[in-house]
Amino acid sequence: MNNSSIIKPRKLSGFMELLPNQQLIFDQMIEKIKSVYLKHAFLPLDTPVLELSEILLAKSGGEIDKEVYRFNKGETDICMRYDLTVPLARFVAMNSEILHYPFKRFQIGKVYRGERAQKGRFREFVQCDADIIGNGELSLVADAECLKMVDEVFEKLEIDIVNQISNRNVLFGYIEGLGYKNEIKKILTVLDKINKIGIENAKAELSDLGVDQENIENLIDIIQKHGKFSDILSKIESLSSNPTFLLGINQLKEVYQYIKSMEINEDKIELNLSIIRGQDYYTGTVFEAIIPQHKEFGTVCGGGRYDNLATYFTDKKFPGVGLSIGFTRLFDLLLSNNMLTQIPTTNVTLQIIPLGDTIKECLQLKEYFANYFVCEVSYEERSFKAKMKDANKKEIPFVIVVGEDEVKTNVYSLKDMRNSIQYNLSKEDCLKTILNSK
Amino acid sequence: MNNSSIIKPRKLSGFMELLPNQQLIFDQMIEKIKSVYLKHAFLPLDTPVLELSEILLAKSGGEIDKEVYRFNKGETDICMRYDLTVPLARFVAMNSEILHYPFKRFQIGKVYRGERAQKGRFREFVQCDADIIGNGELSLVADAECLKMVDEVFEKLEIDIVNQISNRNVLFGYIEGLGYKNEIKKILTVLDKINKIGIENAKAELSDLGVDQENIENLIDIIQKHGKFSDILSKIESLSSNPTFLLGINQLKEVYQYIKSMEINEDKIELNLSIIRGQDYYTGTVFEAIIPQHKEFGTVCGGGRYDNLATYFTDKKFPGVGLSIGFTRLFDLLLSNNMLTQIPTTNVTLQIIPLGDTIKECLQLKEYFANYFVCEVSYEERSFKAKMKDANKKEIPFVIVVGEDEVKTNVYSLKDMRNSIQYNLSKEDCLKTILNSK
Repeated sequence: MNNSSIIKPRKLSGFMELLPNQQLIFDQMIEKIKSVYLKHAFLPLDTPVLELSEILLAKSGGEIDKEVYRFNKGETDICMRYDLTVPLARFVAMNSEILHYPFKRFQIGKVYRGERAQKGRFREFVQCDADIIGNGELSLVADAECLKMVDEVFEKLEIDIVNQISNRNVLFGYIEGLGYKNEIKKILTVLDKINKIGIENAKAELSDLGVDQENIENLIDIIQKHGKFSDILSKIESLSSNPTFLLGINQLKEVYQYIKSMEINEDKIELNLSIIRGQDYYTGTVFEAIIPQHKEFGTVCGGGRYDNLATYFTDKKFPGVGLSIGFTRLFDLLLSNNMLTQIPTTNVTLQIIPLGDTIKECLQLKEYFANYFVCEVSYEERSFKAKMKDANKKEIPFVIVVGEDEVKTNVYSLKDMRNSIQYNLSKEDCLKTILNSK
Repeated sequence: MNNSSIIKPRKLSGFMELLPNQQLIFDQMIEKIKSVYLKHAFLPLDTPVLELSEILLAKSGGEIDKEVYRFNKGETDICMRYDLTVPLARFVAMNSEILHYPFKRFQIGKVYRGERAQKGRFREFVQCDADIIGNGELSLVADAECLKMVDEVFEKLEIDIVNQISNRNVLFGYIEGLGYKNEIKKILTVLDKINKIGIENAKAELSDLGVDQENIENLIDIIQKHGKFSDILSKIESLSSNPTFLLGINQLKEVYQYIKSMEINEDKIELNLSIIRGQDYYTGTVFEAIIPQHKEFGTVCGGGRYDNLATYFTDKKFPGVGLSIGFTRLFDLLLSNNMLTQIPTTNVTLQIIPLGDTIKECLQLKEYFANYFVCEVSYEERSFKAKMKDANKKEIPFVIVVGEDEVKTNVYSLKDMRNSIQYNLSKEDCLKTILNSK
């Protein structure tokens, strides 16, 4: 084939593609998240990436439509999923009779949003979701269980977070109590973007909505409250006698009791009344975890309680609570900020290098070691020197050289590449030496 | 929301969606495959599901075009990947300068083919591929390494297979040696479909291609040879003196030497000259694993050696050898033939059920047990009886009931649900009892 027919290899922009040694770490972190979900008795679900557009777009307004990958295949109007929640709702509605409740499922999979490509935004990204779905009703223990999993996931990932927790009823009821029942959504929208637009602009917008000066101060004041649960609760609980407000306070108190029983690390959580989470469907507990050392990363995990999961697909009521980690974005941030302590070049512990015609003996030796750690034979046609150089470049910790003498005597030269110490040992002693040094 | 606005929940046909307890087993089997790939020093790659159509369809003739999911997003002509090989070729061509060779990567991911839906055919399916790519050249040890991995994967999955191995040069050279150089591809096509069309039809087609009677018998004879490597090799090695034939014989002999060094279970492999693997790009070793007890399943794993991976994307030569498992189809077959020994209802070992107002103590108790096995608290608002019934229905092996007395005395009633034996024990002894019984 000549040059003229060669197509320049390239990928679509906005799609992450890691090098295999980076992908190894990515996968290991995903495994850790999965292990926490499994530990809490969540079972995996894997819905198709493609769904009928009628299903995926059942609830959507305009915005998601533009982002979504949508096309026809034959007569069928198809979308690529843009989140894992609508597929969950569809699944629960379809299988509601055979599921056990509370139904706990996790789903770790790719979702697709064709938004404008920009740094840190991906058109394909892995989401790690876990949700608890009740049949008709759902205990607040479920909310605490999600908070516990957030705690454990980031503990396991060795990432320092603070999970900022609130309850939408508190702010909702507070605003209602101030007398702005009809403006609640608009006021919440302003308060939700206060970090973006700044306090002064927020005040102006609140004023435009007809909120008077004193109440603007009250609102700014309450959403700035954050800190230890017990401190904040005692400061705010008497701020209003609105029933929704009091409901929210009581839900927070109850969740906090469970938090203590579950031994959630209290340094890693705070009650923070600025947490609103724009989306309409949250109805109680809401939370957003941030990395305090890197506030610019924004929310690395979020979630909350919703009254009704599957309202577009069934008359039955399925309240739920869940958490979601946008892992592709998080990994990209960790990688580009050098926050992944080590990206190894390889997963190989021992490289076996033949010297002369000993390839078969090397392969046999690999069988011996391969039950204990990852082990590789240098079987490519290159010089011995080049192979040693490669092992060094790949930062493989141990090398065994197998020449014809070694085969005869069953004594092998084992080299610890990290300190250049060389041993002459039987294969059994090579094994012990490597295992002891790990 | 009233009934009229409810959309009937349904998924696209031809897409597998397992129940979560089935998905748990699916995932565990995938983990086993992955662990074998990792053990042999393969690193993971995860290419995007979407690629430019120009890239994915670089080499395709008409057939794949029809199957492929292809659409425009804005100005961009996009395809969903239909295999993992073209993305690998694109990746290697793009990153050829920074990879270490032989480059060993595995990719476990979904691919998409919009073919007509029929039983056992999926439009979205998980493929588990592993390939070894050389830079310019690649030792035959790599071929044996792939065979070794097939052996280990199915050993680990506890599925009895026979991996049928051949080398395309043998048949190619044999046909050439008979004097049908210009008809080789057509003759191979007939021989490749002999199991579908039957021997008599194959003979007729060969005759139509101008093969004479004696040679038809020779061809039918050679492709029916299968059995132990050493037996078959000694029977066929003198059948032709064609150089390509002899090359194939020598490659088989060399691979067989490595097979022995690698301690591949020889009961699980055979030399089988009927293995051709239609696709043009295989150039040496080819193999197809079947389940002898279920020949009707067809090939459950296949692969082989190819001369040049990335010919459409670069002038450089990248020979490779790889294996591929179409796992969604395999799992579907195992599931529908009741060959998965157990699909548990849950992964929970211990259910903790509160009796009275002891939910907080139950949650604390869960913290104690959760480090050892999966443990769940029944926190939903249901009767104690209903909770016990649920635990029974879900086949959870152990239940602890926590009443107010238990909290005071720290003696809990532990019930082994499998034999209905009940113990009254401290939490420490509950733990021991459960761990010992697993």
